[in-house]
Amino acid sequence: MSLAIISPGKDPKIWIEEFNKLDPDLEIEIYPDIKYPEKVTTAFLWNHPKGLLSEFPNLKLISSMGAGVDHILKDETIHGSIPIVRIVDEMLTFSMTNYVVMAVLNFHRQIVRYQKNQLLKIWDMSNPEIDVRVGVMGVGALGKDVLDKLSNMDFPVFGFGYSEKSDFDYPYFSKDHLAEFLKEINVLICLLPLTPDTEDILNLALFEKCNPGTYIINVARGKHLVDADLLFSIDKGYISGAMLDVYREEPLPVDHPFWEEEKIMMTPHIASVTNPQAAAPQVIENINRMNENRPLVNVVNRSKGY
Amino acid sequence: MSLAIISPGKDPKIWIEEFNKLDPDLEIEIYPDIKYPEKVTTAFLWNHPKGLLSEFPNLKLISSMGAGVDHILKDETIHGSIPIVRIVDEMLTFSMTNYVVMAVLNFHRQIVRYQKNQLLKIWDMSNPEIDVRVGVMGVGALGKDVLDKLSNMDFPVFGFGYSEKSDFDYPYFSKDHLAEFLKEINVLICLLPLTPDTEDILNLALFEKCNPGTYIINVARGKHLVDADLLFSIDKGYISGAMLDVYREEPLPVDHPFWEEEKIMMTPHIASVTNPQAAAPQVIENINRMNENRPLVNVVNRSKGY
Repeated sequence: MSLAIISPGKDPKIWIEEFNKLDPDLEIEIYPDIKYPEKVTTAFLWNHPKGLLSEFPNLKLISSMGAGVDHILKDETIHGSIPIVRIVDEMLTFSMTNYVVMAVLNFHRQIVRYQKNQLLKIWDMSNPEIDVRVGVMGVGALGKDVLDKLSNMDFPVFGFGYSEKSDFDYPYFSKDHLAEFLKEINVLICLLPLTPDTEDILNLALFEKCNPGTYIINVARGKHLVDADLLFSIDKGYISGAMLDVYREEPLPVDHPFWEEEKIMMTPHIASVTNPQAAAPQVIENINRMNENRPLVNVVNRSKGY
Repeated sequence: MSLAIISPGKDPKIWIEEFNKLDPDLEIEIYPDIKYPEKVTTAFLWNHPKGLLSEFPNLKLISSMGAGVDHILKDETIHGSIPIVRIVDEMLTFSMTNYVVMAVLNFHRQIVRYQKNQLLKIWDMSNPEIDVRVGVMGVGALGKDVLDKLSNMDFPVFGFGYSEKSDFDYPYFSKDHLAEFLKEINVLICLLPLTPDTEDILNLALFEKCNPGTYIINVARGKHLVDADLLFSIDKGYISGAMLDVYREEPLPVDHPFWEEEKIMMTPHIASVTNPQAAAPQVIENINRMNENRPLVNVVNRSKGY
């Protein structure tokens, strides 16, 4: 019985250290040097090569290295009977929320305008605030925390999601009410899981329904956003700007037009990084539960996609 | 009986509109064209010329146009028997808190570093967060709200003030414990009132006591900060940078070195601007209380200076 860490391009060292601390007896194999594929019972994955898991005949548990599982679900060769679990990390929520609140406040208080004025030595006190009304797409653990924190700061907030909700703490719109949701807000935050339903959701048709000058914050997945539609909508004034942390291709190629668009503020997928100290115990916990035939925690619903 | 608006360099139009809406019978005079000085019973002030109030023999009430009253108290020709009141405005708290939280988060998530990387098209995911521990100097209505909001966002927070407090929601340090307060934190927010005690408090001796790399946020008054000491301390690395909204001279002269210091982010005294819609009713309320000999609200304690 062993754990295989499969995260091409990502150094697994810190994970190995944490796993060793928690369970010195745990056998760990690192892709691509897996010596005993038949001993692998748990696969710990980030962007694994498609089809690879079929090499492990005794695989019983698949764990994502983060909160997202789209990188696992897109591999349709994985047998549907193997449970998939993900990381739910309070530090991840802390980081994500604080990143999003920062992005909202920088729009609210027009920090880019003031930075430009500083460079030009211009003292302009006029119109110091933009009134913001914030919409969050995706109201899971992360989206709910963003709503809570921004509401506590006295911003009007609205939620949007794919399920119906009869009982929610904030005004909520389900998928058939996207246009009404967009009419309420001028800051749109994408925290949706990436599923076939939500891929390309941030597109021209949506931007055209937004209040003119709406600001976009995407911290979910690059594939939620149609890049050319965002650039077009900024150019047309449907959208006033964006803060982006995720991209269709990462690292973002140097010839991508986002780099040079001054109305787009960019960070390199750092809004929320899974913290091995917080996450490793969850992986060990699920391995123990699997071995003892107890119910797993943070199990992914494959049909929902998260 | 009249109200004299005395705010050289500030257009009083929006205040006149609000006062007229609330009390169409109120007689309003505008400095410098005050026709009947003997009828002035209330003076509504922002940076009035020193000594001017002695021209109003029947003055009974002095109201600041904002939360601060240092601009009034520095005029020692004002008779001590005339009550001074100030504005306490929830919108002012909203703006101030959100500005401060923005400044804390931009330091926490190193937005300036990522902006620079975007310009250079550098994708660098390393060390995405600075752990922040926030200290607030001045724990009145504004400071307390900043502490509440940042604590709600799960940041460790600490308060500092001139009074002793036996019962406070957060770890609190009074004036003899400044060095211990500074040892707890790496973000220092100044929200103190400007008094003889607090003038020049952000000086080299204080910066030397800070944890190396501490970040400074000054949203109180320019005179709290010794400009040359901040520049020296940034140069020495005692201080990693600052966000400033207030200056010893405003507008900041174009030859001031702050404009070109890239570790200082500047805004032109817009963190929190008194909102006439919210503030005018408070002025009218105090005029009515004065006329009816009822106790005034938001009265300034001259010996404390706020």
